[in-house]
Amino acid sequence: MYIILVYDFGQKRVGKMLKLCRRYLNWIQNSVFEGEMTEVQLKEMLHEAKRIMNEEQDSLILFKNRDQKWMDKQIVGIERQSTDDFL
Amino acid sequence: MYIILVYDFGQKRVGKMLKLCRRYLNWIQNSVFEGEMTEVQLKEMLHEAKRIMNEEQDSLILFKNRDQKWMDKQIVGIERQSTDDFL
Repeated sequence: MYIILVYDFGQKRVGKMLKLCRRYLNWIQNSVFEGEMTEVQLKEMLHEAKRIMNEEQDSLILFKNRDQKWMDKQIVGIERQSTDDFL
Repeated sequence: MYIILVYDFGQKRVGKMLKLCRRYLNWIQNSVFEGEMTEVQLKEMLHEAKRIMNEEQDSLILFKNRDQKWMDKQIVGIERQSTDDFL
C-alpha cells in the first residue's frame, strides 16, 4: 500500500513524530512523508503515533493508495528529499 | 482529477502561494491542499505558481489521481480544514 502522510504536531511532540515517520516512510518535504507500507506496519505506526500525539491539538492525515501506479507525482522547483543528515 | 498539493516556499512568497492554492483547492493542513481539478485548471495554477516561486529555493509537489476512489483518506487527531478565516 502506498502512503502519503502529513502531520501538524505541537512543537514539543514534532521531533518524536518526525523520528517515527522516518522509521517507516521517506521524507519528502516539511512534515510530508511517502512510501510503501503493509497494513501491519501502518497499524504499528499509528499505534505509536497516537502515543506521541495530543489528539485534541495535533493532526495526522494519511492518504492510502492500493497501488502507486494510480498516482502520478510531479515536483516543481527543488526536490528536498533524502538528505540523510536532515534533522 | 484529484490533486494533493504540498508546498514549501520561502517566507516572502508563502502568502501569495497560499492565496493561489485556495483559489483552486481546499486547504487541509499547514501547506497541504487537496481537491478536484481539470487539466486546464492545473496548467493555469502551475503557470501562476511558477511566477510566484523561486525555483532554486522553493518546492512544490503534486500528487495526481485520476479518481479519488482509488484513494482512502484517514484523519487522526483534529481536523484542521475549512476555517474560512484561516490566513
